[in-house]
Amino acid sequence: MTKNEIKHIQSLADKKIRSQENVFIVEGIKLLAELLTSNFIIQKVYTTDDAWIENNPLIPSELIAEFEMKKISQLKTASPYFAIVTAPIKLDKLPFQERALILDGIQDPGNLGTIIRIADWFGIAHIIASNDTADCYNSKVIQATMGGIFRINIHYVDLLDYLPNVKIPILGALLHGENINKITKITDAQLIIGNESKGIRSAIQPFIQKAITIPQYGKAESLNAAVATGILVAQIFTYPEVH
Amino acid sequence: MTKNEIKHIQSLADKKIRSQENVFIVEGIKLLAELLTSNFIIQKVYTTDDAWIENNPLIPSELIAEFEMKKISQLKTASPYFAIVTAPIKLDKLPFQERALILDGIQDPGNLGTIIRIADWFGIAHIIASNDTADCYNSKVIQATMGGIFRINIHYVDLLDYLPNVKIPILGALLHGENINKITKITDAQLIIGNESKGIRSAIQPFIQKAITIPQYGKAESLNAAVATGILVAQIFTYPEVH
Repeated sequence: MTKNEIKHIQSLADKKIRSQENVFIVEGIKLLAELLTSNFIIQKVYTTDDAWIENNPLIPSELIAEFEMKKISQLKTASPYFAIVTAPIKLDKLPFQERALILDGIQDPGNLGTIIRIADWFGIAHIIASNDTADCYNSKVIQATMGGIFRINIHYVDLLDYLPNVKIPILGALLHGENINKITKITDAQLIIGNESKGIRSAIQPFIQKAITIPQYGKAESLNAAVATGILVAQIFTYPEVH
Repeated sequence: MTKNEIKHIQSLADKKIRSQENVFIVEGIKLLAELLTSNFIIQKVYTTDDAWIENNPLIPSELIAEFEMKKISQLKTASPYFAIVTAPIKLDKLPFQERALILDGIQDPGNLGTIIRIADWFGIAHIIASNDTADCYNSKVIQATMGGIFRINIHYVDLLDYLPNVKIPILGALLHGENINKITKITDAQLIIGNESKGIRSAIQPFIQKAITIPQYGKAESLNAAVATGILVAQIFTYPEVH
């Protein structure tokens, strides 16, 4: 690899440059395997594994040295696989009538990735994120999704424009809402999750039609945002019969 | 601070040295505030804030420079407060008859801290951890507990010695257990959570009296371990009436 090539790939750690070039980066064999089963377009795979090159003649790939991989990897421990992937085209059509999670300013990449993984487990196809939510193509987010990034539709919007158009009930996780153990499970709804420390912004709160709360029985001040999302998603929505 | 003092404090990032000296480290104003309301013994606070020194004459404290704080801090962004705290004496008495979470090899410090925070929210006083579970006094764990580290009793044990003595039902999170939406909520039980990628070890599985499962409706292979713990704890235990 040339110095300029390495420098350019390193610059993709920056959100601005990623979105200018409309790409994101996928590292590690597990995520790469999930990527191959998706409809995403791989621009190029850099790998230290020559068997990969042989076994995947149709994917544009380049064999590189381990010291080069260490330079371009965004992981603490570089993996043998590093792919540059085209980011999906933003659809104009927003899911105003479908079950969705709405994120109001989630900041921690690990939390965002874990929430995408929760949506992927429970079959919630859409996440609506306020424009100041962490970037879903940040490498920590992608790692934490465990492949969910390839299956869940993530829409960045101005929530003040989006929310008035939602055609199904809007629930919101607040501190003094209805106890989730007592509410009737709901089929079609969108659920707002707030920022890790500030919760749901006051400008957004008037759009909440039903405030809900996970009751606290111990002494913690709050739950982690992704854990709270998991508990709410498991408890408030109806699901088809299984087992 | 002398060079040796800095070197010594830096060495406390190592679990072995921490446990030889029977101490752990607490950083940041929020955690320090929680620490002050606990029964833990503060050996010394290093701070860059001279108001702290004035306002806390009874706590052994030392004013240090910002460049010194940067050297000793284990955080990405150093805070003005760094405390060395005595680790609690291990009690011989284990909670064989009380509600508890049992962790079989949780590896990720963030997950362990988040699970301690979940226990702290739901009022589960005890966590039993296999000896190969992450160290609860790792700085990432402490940060993720958000203060729960000062309130939850964490016991490291050999699970094969511990489990035969448990006097209440033992539940375990497995892939093909009973659907948690269909089980009767339980008052006294201990719940086993397995390792992030391997789940509950096969040697431990025979102690599970009831296997339980969070049904999957989407395509994710698994849920994050802390999220799964939160969903299970919220759904399987009985709680007093609130709201």
